[in-house]
Amino acid sequence: MGLLDGISEPADLRKLSHKELVQLAKEIRQFLITNVARTGGHLGPNLGVVELTMAIHLVFDSPRDPIVFDTGHQSYVHKILTGRAGGFPGLRQRGGLSGYPSRAESEHDWMENSHASTGLSWGEGMAKAFRLRGETDRTVVTIVGDGALTGGMTWEALNNIAVESDLPMVIVVNDNGRSYAPTVGGLSKQLSGLRTDPRYEKTLDVIKLAVNKAPLFGKQAYELLHGLKIGLKDVLAPQGLFSDLGLKYIGPVDGHDLQALTTALRQAKGFGGPVIVHAITVKGKGFPFAEHHERDRFHAIGRINEFTGEPLTPSVQATWTDAFGQEMVDLGETHPEVVAITAAMLHPVGLGRFAAAYPDRVFDVGIAEQHAVASAAGMARAGLHPVFAVYSTFLNRAFDQLLLDVGMHHMGVTFVLDRAGVTGPDGPSHDGVWDTSLTGIVPGLRLAAPRDAERLHDALHEALEVNDAPTVIRYSKDKLPDPIPAERHVGGVDVLRHAERHDVLVIGYGQMAGTALQVADRLTKQGLGVSVIDPLWALPVPPALVRLAADYSLVVTIEDGMVVGGLGSRVELALDAEGVDVPVREFGIPQEFLPMATRAELMEQLGLTPRQIARDVTELAMSVMPHVEFDLDDLDDLGTQDADPAGHARPGKPVRRRS
Amino acid sequence: MGLLDGISEPADLRKLSHKELVQLAKEIRQFLITNVARTGGHLGPNLGVVELTMAIHLVFDSPRDPIVFDTGHQSYVHKILTGRAGGFPGLRQRGGLSGYPSRAESEHDWMENSHASTGLSWGEGMAKAFRLRGETDRTVVTIVGDGALTGGMTWEALNNIAVESDLPMVIVVNDNGRSYAPTVGGLSKQLSGLRTDPRYEKTLDVIKLAVNKAPLFGKQAYELLHGLKIGLKDVLAPQGLFSDLGLKYIGPVDGHDLQALTTALRQAKGFGGPVIVHAITVKGKGFPFAEHHERDRFHAIGRINEFTGEPLTPSVQATWTDAFGQEMVDLGETHPEVVAITAAMLHPVGLGRFAAAYPDRVFDVGIAEQHAVASAAGMARAGLHPVFAVYSTFLNRAFDQLLLDVGMHHMGVTFVLDRAGVTGPDGPSHDGVWDTSLTGIVPGLRLAAPRDAERLHDALHEALEVNDAPTVIRYSKDKLPDPIPAERHVGGVDVLRHAERHDVLVIGYGQMAGTALQVADRLTKQGLGVSVIDPLWALPVPPALVRLAADYSLVVTIEDGMVVGGLGSRVELALDAEGVDVPVREFGIPQEFLPMATRAELMEQLGLTPRQIARDVTELAMSVMPHVEFDLDDLDDLGTQDADPAGHARPGKPVRRRS
Repeated sequence: MGLLDGISEPADLRKLSHKELVQLAKEIRQFLITNVARTGGHLGPNLGVVELTMAIHLVFDSPRDPIVFDTGHQSYVHKILTGRAGGFPGLRQRGGLSGYPSRAESEHDWMENSHASTGLSWGEGMAKAFRLRGETDRTVVTIVGDGALTGGMTWEALNNIAVESDLPMVIVVNDNGRSYAPTVGGLSKQLSGLRTDPRYEKTLDVIKLAVNKAPLFGKQAYELLHGLKIGLKDVLAPQGLFSDLGLKYIGPVDGHDLQALTTALRQAKGFGGPVIVHAITVKGKGFPFAEHHERDRFHAIGRINEFTGEPLTPSVQATWTDAFGQEMVDLGETHPEVVAITAAMLHPVGLGRFAAAYPDRVFDVGIAEQHAVASAAGMARAGLHPVFAVYSTFLNRAFDQLLLDVGMHHMGVTFVLDRAGVTGPDGPSHDGVWDTSLTGIVPGLRLAAPRDAERLHDALHEALEVNDAPTVIRYSKDKLPDPIPAERHVGGVDVLRHAERHDVLVIGYGQMAGTALQVADRLTKQGLGVSVIDPLWALPVPPALVRLAADYSLVVTIEDGMVVGGLGSRVELALDAEGVDVPVREFGIPQEFLPMATRAELMEQLGLTPRQIARDVTELAMSVMPHVEFDLDDLDDLGTQDADPAGHARPGKPVRRRS
Repeated sequence: MGLLDGISEPADLRKLSHKELVQLAKEIRQFLITNVARTGGHLGPNLGVVELTMAIHLVFDSPRDPIVFDTGHQSYVHKILTGRAGGFPGLRQRGGLSGYPSRAESEHDWMENSHASTGLSWGEGMAKAFRLRGETDRTVVTIVGDGALTGGMTWEALNNIAVESDLPMVIVVNDNGRSYAPTVGGLSKQLSGLRTDPRYEKTLDVIKLAVNKAPLFGKQAYELLHGLKIGLKDVLAPQGLFSDLGLKYIGPVDGHDLQALTTALRQAKGFGGPVIVHAITVKGKGFPFAEHHERDRFHAIGRINEFTGEPLTPSVQATWTDAFGQEMVDLGETHPEVVAITAAMLHPVGLGRFAAAYPDRVFDVGIAEQHAVASAAGMARAGLHPVFAVYSTFLNRAFDQLLLDVGMHHMGVTFVLDRAGVTGPDGPSHDGVWDTSLTGIVPGLRLAAPRDAERLHDALHEALEVNDAPTVIRYSKDKLPDPIPAERHVGGVDVLRHAERHDVLVIGYGQMAGTALQVADRLTKQGLGVSVIDPLWALPVPPALVRLAADYSLVVTIEDGMVVGGLGSRVELALDAEGVDVPVREFGIPQEFLPMATRAELMEQLGLTPRQIARDVTELAMSVMPHVEFDLDDLDDLGTQDADPAGHARPGKPVRRRS
């Protein structure tokens, strides 16, 4: 493909002329568009940082100088420049190139997939370690987006970094005015005031001129540049926020001008203490469909036509997100006290239509889950009922606020967790497998995982009636199942299938209700009497569930979440508390970080398909129920335990009793 | 006591002349010293806000204008002014006056005890709710300390508040330059630069003069005041940080000058949008022992002599904190890679001596647990082994960072959790009862609760050898027990008592190991064969524990933490996974927020004394082990279930089996 073929490590960049570098940037951009169009991935963010990443690798000596990406999805160019271009056809696929930095892939990757706003803390920690170990010639470079700066962690980090005047750290603010959505808040206003200032271009010229005339490095050059900035203060006041904290600031720099970028980064590197380099970039740069898309559709894409920007396989599947979005519009009409909160993901969580219908009743707080939850507590305290819609994994950030500000204060706040359970290609930090264990700690909290749209409707309506406790509703990234009717209702629990003989009770809920029914089909063929229930409200464990369970020889729980702290373990505790001694076997996510793969691949690997669960339950049942005659015609399905590659997810060995 | 006797509600303040108000402030201060010296409590912070709280109640109309205290321990004066002076003899005692705001106590209290840095989010949420509900004449006043401003949540809140120009919200920054310890970071530097400026007094005079000459309110007055500030910019540049975000700023104001305070607050109230009032206060004001104590010993006190400031009952008990502090000093010598991190609590967590010995190896990050943990991950990544010493309850704030930045990245970071388990007088937000459930979610994490100083020593040394996973060591606020020897060691598990007959296996660890032994004493008297083990490393559940448990008729777990997600539930899962079907009964903290009381009172109330546990286990054992002849001589101890006032903590009904 030309110059790109000659790049296998950062040092190769330094052999190129400026003209060649500009050409290389073009090639990288085309490479990204072509490849990511085929695989899907974070296209927009990476198109925005082509020159920026090149400049960083030109100026710094990775991996000796570690490069840390806050929100690692902007590391594609870094991957290309560190010898991984060949891996892009397998991007975000099982066994392929991660969509985030990966230490297994390269020594140039220091920090992997994580949630936003962590990069400055990592960078500070690493720089402090190098300083203490006397490795003073190493500089840590952290790239952080303006969106991530709305997260409180960055404030905590900056507050600490500001007083470490000799910490070898360069902070590159990649400012494109939007993260997932336009960046919000006072910070954004300050940054955008700068970007839209008509004097901006002129000022940049002045700065570039000054810098070019100053072939000095280190503190001297910084002081010169800084002196210049002071002089410009009347026409331009961008650096206030950072400078007020005591941080050195260089910028703004045109994030697509390689020369300006390398000059600024060299100044910063030479200074020897923490310096902010403020680069203005255009998200989606070079891909016209992406550059100005209002809803930022090209932030993360599926497979698209690289020439039209249109999805190759337009989604016609009904999604949980859409169903929730429609419910919210309806609820907004009937429930004037309902307001919606999002943490920088208005459209991804399905609140777009609600926002259009009730613009003064939706609050985008930025990437600020802690504030979202405590603010919701305040709103509830003053008479509203907030619905915080958030991806399951991001609620991790606000556990303390959920526990104390909402839970302890008995505030009626509804949490709607999208992407709950196994998600897949985004890797382990984005799997929503912890929410039940985490939120289940909170006293008084109610949790439901609806099994279909009808149950989602009911759960939302019931949640909005709870004004003295937090309520959690979780659903999958997987497709919205067709309606699954109940055969009967027992004390608030839906019986999806009732068997006359009470051998096995299968408890399935949320996305796993369908799996539970398929498991029951298979077990029934083995000659077992199998009932299936959906608790609807899984937490607290319904008393009716305990009463039902007491009548069976074996209880099986199936959930799309961690076994540790999950519904199964809660059923165990509830049975213990009632003195019911029925064996319980829990199927769910084992206590490990899942590899990158599709959801279907992961479920198979974890032994969570109907076939695998039915096989394991049959083995268990044979030990618990020697009186049952099993139909061995289906023995083919059983396989052997040793042949199961997933081993770890098996819910246990056959039951043996001492007494 | 004079004027104070005439104050039963805020309106009474408005009847007093300025001279009388000054006299009242004196009386309140004396009242605080006298009362808190007798009961213990947060003396320093409240002495600092006497005039500030009075001024707020003079200017605003509580409860119509809600007053929100960030970190509620500074609400004593507010309690006095809202008719609760009479409750002070019972401060922080069971059934008495809470040390924090309490909605049960007064309609003037809107938000209760919570962790630091939440007040602005609550205030913002409430103000948004009032605005949406059309209650536009209500102003929400939030009082936040400079220490709390180092927490990232305040940044998230300010970023959101800054763009809501019509939000009726007054933010009072109570700036005393120290929270628990001197406030750290760039923010502090900016604030203290102002306070120590020799031109400060003069500037204050100028401001006061200007304000007094301006009998205008609302935007006009604000603009006048603001214009004045602009003019002062050359000699004084305090407001940069807030103004850069777009927030209106009034100050600095002498926080002990009632007139200046009321004037500033009136200006702020009249403005109609969010305004920051920056008040400079002296922590411990009026109590000379407290005003300048280097280690801030009077932040929270036990009972003291009000005339000498000396503790009435000097502590001679050995504490876990001291034992940890000494271990760290020793470890610092032998382990050069060890560094210590604290979140604004250097001395309370016992790191004072380590800091003195290795000043460049200790990092106080401010009230910033998220940053502490992610920064620790960065340090570990670059070759150090960080020890983050923190109160158990505050780790809630950093769950996401523990899970992803440390756990998912396989970083060797040691977490030392002080005040784990039931603590008592600080109320539910400070009980450390969630850590095991919370940290137990993290894949690969190891958790130990040492039972004595020797085991703490061992656990710390072992933790420092783990460089690919997070390790948690938790201990109690309760006294450090005398050494408890093991009778034998089995596969990494300590057998504290071995019985020949295997009826009951009691698993006790940490502060409950002693309780477990006492329970065993009582059960043995009932005629049961009882062994006691301490798993040492409780998580992951040791295989040896599972093997031992398989040989008993009943397994009992006793822990100083929540049953939900606690060790007991993990033992259940581990037994299930091995197909071991022994009944397990879990004793621990029920899923509820505990009332304020002493630890001893709470343990009794929760049914967690040796006597109560032994009684319950005997009942269970009688149903599980019909073959055992119980010695009914001790039946007195059993009582009846209905007579147990604590009911809820009972670990369940007698066991019944279907098969």
